[in-house]
Amino acid sequence: MTGEDIMGFVAGALVTFSLVPQIIRVFTLKSAREISMLFTGLMLAGILMWLGYGIFKSLFPVILWNAIGALLVSMLLYAKLRYGR
Amino acid sequence: MTGEDIMGFVAGALVTFSLVPQIIRVFTLKSAREISMLFTGLMLAGILMWLGYGIFKSLFPVILWNAIGALLVSMLLYAKLRYGR
Repeated sequence: MTGEDIMGFVAGALVTFSLVPQIIRVFTLKSAREISMLFTGLMLAGILMWLGYGIFKSLFPVILWNAIGALLVSMLLYAKLRYGR
Repeated sequence: MTGEDIMGFVAGALVTFSLVPQIIRVFTLKSAREISMLFTGLMLAGILMWLGYGIFKSLFPVILWNAIGALLVSMLLYAKLRYGR
């Protein structure tokens, strides 16, 4: 792995796992009023498309980060449906 | 452009622009209590690393989406600093 590969790997990890504290915050507060439903829906749709793109092109890091990302955004969507409004 | 290229392009647009309704929501409510500071900070750090990766590797779509993304997450960070807590 080159330095650039490592940079891409760390960048993907940061962006994907940034969702974890957001999910924890919403579940801790038991409130997701400020979370935009459109944000959650568009993000999930985009991540699923990236996942499909990664599968078609056999790009392992794209598949990995977006599979984890899809799971995390689904949890945020669940929180929004449960605690939103 | 192949169908896969278009898929990657649309996927990037969806994920990046999903931030727009979230930013609008926080500014409309004038409240960002539920937005996690760690989410915003990690996301911004990750996007800036993707931007650097795109510049090093001369990947135009990576540069484009992450430059727009960095701008959008900065607006969310501003909202968090102004309306958070």
